[in-house]
Amino acid sequence: MSERRRSIYLDHAATTPVDPRVIEAMQPYWAGAFGNTSSIHGVGRAALKGLEQARQTVADVLGCHPMEIVFTGGGTESDNLALRGVAWAARRNGRGEHIVTTPIEHHAVGVTAEQLRDLHEFDVTFVDVDEHGRVDPDAVGRAIRRETCLISVMYANNEVGTIQPLRDIGALARSQGIAFHTDAVQAGGALDLNVDRLNIDLLALSAHKFYGPKGIGVLYVRRGTELEPALTGGGHERGRRPGTVNVAGVVGLATALKLAQDNRESENARVAALRDRLIAGVLERVPDAQLTGHPAERLPNSASFAIKGVEGESILLALDLEGIFVSTGSACTTGEAEPSFVLTAMGFPHEWAVGSLRMTLGHLTQSEDIDTVLEVLPRVVERLREHTPVTMGN
Amino acid sequence: MSERRRSIYLDHAATTPVDPRVIEAMQPYWAGAFGNTSSIHGVGRAALKGLEQARQTVADVLGCHPMEIVFTGGGTESDNLALRGVAWAARRNGRGEHIVTTPIEHHAVGVTAEQLRDLHEFDVTFVDVDEHGRVDPDAVGRAIRRETCLISVMYANNEVGTIQPLRDIGALARSQGIAFHTDAVQAGGALDLNVDRLNIDLLALSAHKFYGPKGIGVLYVRRGTELEPALTGGGHERGRRPGTVNVAGVVGLATALKLAQDNRESENARVAALRDRLIAGVLERVPDAQLTGHPAERLPNSASFAIKGVEGESILLALDLEGIFVSTGSACTTGEAEPSFVLTAMGFPHEWAVGSLRMTLGHLTQSEDIDTVLEVLPRVVERLREHTPVTMGN
Repeated sequence: MSERRRSIYLDHAATTPVDPRVIEAMQPYWAGAFGNTSSIHGVGRAALKGLEQARQTVADVLGCHPMEIVFTGGGTESDNLALRGVAWAARRNGRGEHIVTTPIEHHAVGVTAEQLRDLHEFDVTFVDVDEHGRVDPDAVGRAIRRETCLISVMYANNEVGTIQPLRDIGALARSQGIAFHTDAVQAGGALDLNVDRLNIDLLALSAHKFYGPKGIGVLYVRRGTELEPALTGGGHERGRRPGTVNVAGVVGLATALKLAQDNRESENARVAALRDRLIAGVLERVPDAQLTGHPAERLPNSASFAIKGVEGESILLALDLEGIFVSTGSACTTGEAEPSFVLTAMGFPHEWAVGSLRMTLGHLTQSEDIDTVLEVLPRVVERLREHTPVTMGN
Repeated sequence: MSERRRSIYLDHAATTPVDPRVIEAMQPYWAGAFGNTSSIHGVGRAALKGLEQARQTVADVLGCHPMEIVFTGGGTESDNLALRGVAWAARRNGRGEHIVTTPIEHHAVGVTAEQLRDLHEFDVTFVDVDEHGRVDPDAVGRAIRRETCLISVMYANNEVGTIQPLRDIGALARSQGIAFHTDAVQAGGALDLNVDRLNIDLLALSAHKFYGPKGIGVLYVRRGTELEPALTGGGHERGRRPGTVNVAGVVGLATALKLAQDNRESENARVAALRDRLIAGVLERVPDAQLTGHPAERLPNSASFAIKGVEGESILLALDLEGIFVSTGSACTTGEAEPSFVLTAMGFPHEWAVGSLRMTLGHLTQSEDIDTVLEVLPRVVERLREHTPVTMGN
């Protein structure tokens, strides 16, 4: 055990702390302009004004019309609305019932596609990815059929940070009149979100990934996209997402997104420099460690590795004792001792795929943190290799 | 126009301001214990601790086991999960596909039942209500078939405040092995929520109706109830509701529910006394006004009326100019000039059903507010009757 020090949070892809300016922006909507945006009286109108200003802010970042913005309860719900919405609209309208996606999507997309296939009898094709986790647009092209109603490819992978060639896939989808959805939950705040430049029809975001509150998300829906609501109730959000609007959350999301957009280049440069030093240091000091994901086309804050013959969860717990907080696989699958399904899909053999280690930098990351990790991690891996056969786990 | 005065909020059934103690309870989870509850490191565990304490608090109020509590993005999502979850589980397991409900449910239940019927080919029976908006348990019994998988009857109506005989309907459902769901969104904070006393299998709540934040809800699911997730993704909430848990929201919900429970009797007595004075005054001073809903079995804070020959929306807007905030129909359907579907189902003819007026009291309501409304409302109705033929609308 080392001397006491402040804890080091390297799990910004799992979630981020709410920015103080975001908390301040939400404040007026708790007990002041607290109305229900469906109420047409003064208190309702005050809340509605906050909602529509936030909608405009988000639309400006995405380069779209405000009426194309749907606020939801989070990234998972946004992805569900995109997939279920397009699939059920296709069935209702008697169109094709085939969906194209990838095997490395977040569960919000992957499990939803599986449920649509297994319970609701839609047809789903999972297009392979290469060893860097990239999807080949030509492979997507080959998977398309006359019955294809939706293509869903994530913007950037949550585990290995790989950025997909959305623009090319989107162009392909558009040329064939197929709706194109992207789970941009990890890209939000870090990458360009202009839906026209990216050729996107549906795009999902979650506020808590970019220093906004949890429990609030966005689905961008291009005008003309046929969408059946995934949840049903009142006529909120132009009939696409029912339920009293979480105005404080919406305002928090918009504020956080705007802040991220305004500081994107400088913050990306800052964390990418730290991240590059972290990657180089790990590859130099930890034997049998590989960078996972694409070497260049990756999120600026993402450093991910496969460490041969050591369980990722053992590394995580050992680092936790040292006050260093990292992730293995994705935050949603921790607790399972199975090899990373993302690394497996990328072709990593079992002895590497169990050793998934993800460190994601962000606002909280300082240069000294990298020094500390580069001092502690090699020692931790060495100790684990001496004492914990990989088959035993914890 | 009368002299300036503070505004009077009589729309607590639409939403409520967040209690300052609730805001304070949420504070530590914005930037301190901000972790993802799926992360197994220190920051994740701190968030998880907050989540599980909140779950215990809610379970204590409902008299159930914490693992029967599922946190959702709000009341609408909770209702969707109950209906879709039971319906799809029945289909997956090859059981009956018949649902029994009422014509006066909130849209979160009513529209969901309609979509299950129209798009997904489930069978739905709507059991009539009487002139007070009460469901007869015997009528529910007659609607049950061998194929019935779910009965859904709201606890208290959002427009007219009528409380349903849940306990009797629940006993009936239990005797036949049918899942019984109640939308308790309006009852939360005001009525007994003990799920065993009420014979409930699924119960939906929304925090913002009892001085908690918007965007967070609960679905109670009795152990053994077969439920397919309505949204799919990560394994959060024991596989019943995916998505990073909104811990601040959950803590806010639990804090608000506990506060409401602790002060329930005294606050109910306080608002019921004011409410009774309001009802008596309106019936005395406004000609051709009827109380809607059950005269005794109604929410303690609910005063609802049908005003003959005047559009509810015209009253609402005229009162708004006087700084008095009320509702017509339900908050989710305002903007539509149609007669209240609830009053129509209760047998009110068109000329009465367009004149739905709802005033719902709460923490913000003071005795002087009632005096003011009783002075202003008769004047407003008289003026509208003189100048606005009901067919013209606004």
